[in-house]
Amino acid sequence: MSLIVQKYGGTSVGDLDRIKGVALRIKRYKDKGHQVVVVVSAMSGETNRLVTMGEEISVGQPNAREMDVLTASGEQVSVALLSMALQDTGIAAKSMLADQVGIKTNSSHGRARIAEIEVEPIRKNLEAGIVSVVAGFQGVDSKGNITTLGRGGSDTSAVALAAALEADECEICTDVDGVYTADPRLVDSARRMETVTFEEMLELASLGSKVLHPRSVEFAGRYQVPLRVLSTFEPGPGTLITTEESNMEQPLVSGIAHARDEAKITVSGVPDIPGIASKILGPVSDADIEVDMIVQNTGVDGLTDFTFTVKRQDYARAVATLEPICKAIKAAGITGDNEIAKVSIVGVGMRSHAGVATKMFDCLAHENVNIQMISTSEIKISVVVAEKYMELAVRALHSEFGLQEGASVAE
Amino acid sequence: MSLIVQKYGGTSVGDLDRIKGVALRIKRYKDKGHQVVVVVSAMSGETNRLVTMGEEISVGQPNAREMDVLTASGEQVSVALLSMALQDTGIAAKSMLADQVGIKTNSSHGRARIAEIEVEPIRKNLEAGIVSVVAGFQGVDSKGNITTLGRGGSDTSAVALAAALEADECEICTDVDGVYTADPRLVDSARRMETVTFEEMLELASLGSKVLHPRSVEFAGRYQVPLRVLSTFEPGPGTLITTEESNMEQPLVSGIAHARDEAKITVSGVPDIPGIASKILGPVSDADIEVDMIVQNTGVDGLTDFTFTVKRQDYARAVATLEPICKAIKAAGITGDNEIAKVSIVGVGMRSHAGVATKMFDCLAHENVNIQMISTSEIKISVVVAEKYMELAVRALHSEFGLQEGASVAE
Repeated sequence: MSLIVQKYGGTSVGDLDRIKGVALRIKRYKDKGHQVVVVVSAMSGETNRLVTMGEEISVGQPNAREMDVLTASGEQVSVALLSMALQDTGIAAKSMLADQVGIKTNSSHGRARIAEIEVEPIRKNLEAGIVSVVAGFQGVDSKGNITTLGRGGSDTSAVALAAALEADECEICTDVDGVYTADPRLVDSARRMETVTFEEMLELASLGSKVLHPRSVEFAGRYQVPLRVLSTFEPGPGTLITTEESNMEQPLVSGIAHARDEAKITVSGVPDIPGIASKILGPVSDADIEVDMIVQNTGVDGLTDFTFTVKRQDYARAVATLEPICKAIKAAGITGDNEIAKVSIVGVGMRSHAGVATKMFDCLAHENVNIQMISTSEIKISVVVAEKYMELAVRALHSEFGLQEGASVAE
Repeated sequence: MSLIVQKYGGTSVGDLDRIKGVALRIKRYKDKGHQVVVVVSAMSGETNRLVTMGEEISVGQPNAREMDVLTASGEQVSVALLSMALQDTGIAAKSMLADQVGIKTNSSHGRARIAEIEVEPIRKNLEAGIVSVVAGFQGVDSKGNITTLGRGGSDTSAVALAAALEADECEICTDVDGVYTADPRLVDSARRMETVTFEEMLELASLGSKVLHPRSVEFAGRYQVPLRVLSTFEPGPGTLITTEESNMEQPLVSGIAHARDEAKITVSGVPDIPGIASKILGPVSDADIEVDMIVQNTGVDGLTDFTFTVKRQDYARAVATLEPICKAIKAAGITGDNEIAKVSIVGVGMRSHAGVATKMFDCLAHENVNIQMISTSEIKISVVVAEKYMELAVRALHSEFGLQEGASVAE
């Protein structure tokens, strides 16, 4: 008998029939003798509907505290409905809101961090054989205000609960049947991974493989919560996210990630002096624009070019923000491109293998894909290419690193 | 400077524009220097939508605890939206859910009773100049479970809060501009009353004038909370509900109430022996059917007829429930009529005046309206007539007792 925390996302509880399906899925686990704690998101589309109402009624920025009260109502609806459906299948169940569980957070409305979870209320339910149906996404601060954890926060709720309860596994039940070596919509031969390490998952998640919220992966890694991504709708083991040790035969590269909707901005002829990077990026982040890759070449003649990428939707605003800065620091000019994409290879195996980068660059050169920017970390290499080459690059790399169905796992 | 509790119903906060209108209405009170505490219902249609979802997902009766969690989310949405709208008009505001206020109830889910209200959280807001926007309809029991007060419960929330805070007035802001001498849709000359006593209001409310929930009137009467019914959308003083003493010139009859959708059932040839009434009505109330008027005539030859009224929707079920009982007690038979209506005259003035009943019966006889049943209380006389005569009866009585616009108030 295991204690399993299961998280069901918005699509999994998207309508009443799906909620009934989830209840039956939970019943199958209970029938096998497992103890189950459930975390639920709002029904799909509901959080957006609520956010839109909040934005429409507000002249300026909606009040953050009230936005949390508003959006938290979405999870309140789904936990009540799922509890009803469970009771109908003969499973004792009880909805639990954040304040009823004791999911304590700080007071950063809209992006609160979990500080502590009380385990007593849920343990009591477990002892009484009751399935706790916990509202994801929401928390409560020390003054009793409702907070929310930000988009994808239900994943974090589930992982944090699993950590607090020392659960045997945390299942993220979603509309895909696992984590793939590349996006199956781009690459026909993409393969579901049996396992992937936390670090790889973290890179894959933050690089646009939107299966899991990066924060939840980080959390799971830190607290060593065995995390599994699997389908709500189909049977199958999904993908287990593990610590590195358990993967004996580590492939060189585990997966190919891509991110469309990127844009790059180059400030050229920048005086190569200390503090110049923050002079450029400071105002950009002050304008709440997220900067992703940053590349600065060694300067020539005291001047350098400074390039970074932003989300495409922020491109125009970022350029507008930079224009006065550009004048102030006497840079030569601003150029940009909003038709680029980022393609990355990810794998803990590349730590101990040289030549992975060369192999990647050769592969792309062979396909005549020009590389515009390069950025590397310990377990990933990202390149920026023209958007039109993105699919080609992903497919070529997927094949180059032997990730296709049927290929030997260890290179 | 007064402390005013204002309650806004579902129609008043029915869409985002109306919520903005309510915010401006509250601002006008604040600008005059009043302290305001607001109680809000769910947006119109929302509670029904949630109840329907709960009923649809449940095979049998939906779990009562979860139904409360589900429906309470409706008020959570409206308090957040109204707080946002208030902040946009420059009014400091804070949404308060039942557990944040401390609206403590018993554990009767779906029809909980308020046991206690903590005033500290709202007083703190008042001292800080913050308008508390309190979720109506909901409460929290001693174990931290969400409860709801039943339909119309927001009125009760508002009155209970006003009593606890010792407010100067409790305003029920709604889509009508006061309490009328009869339903203006039936009687053209119906007149808004300046004042009405709690007792009269209680009879009017329970007799089908659906302006105020009877429980809230009872509560207001008990705790002597000055209660005012007025329009959210139009200016005007509305109707003040007062204690009897303040009405010096008491009219004989204050208003004419009516209730459609009634049905009557007669069990005839019943042995006239002690305990027979409970033998008949016990099984009916066990079947959760509400019985309204009950009439039993003096028996002749040891037999009597026993007649009572129920809601029309419960008619068939009530008859089915009674058939075996009828056999068991050896009654002669059951007859019924589900096309009847109840018409009542209400007025504290009739306490001290004889002849009111005669005047009523004469009036109806003059219009050839046959009276099928009669039931009286200290301040009201109700008659059952065929449904087709209802409008005629209401209009004739309204005129007979001089309630029309321009008539002298005191008879």
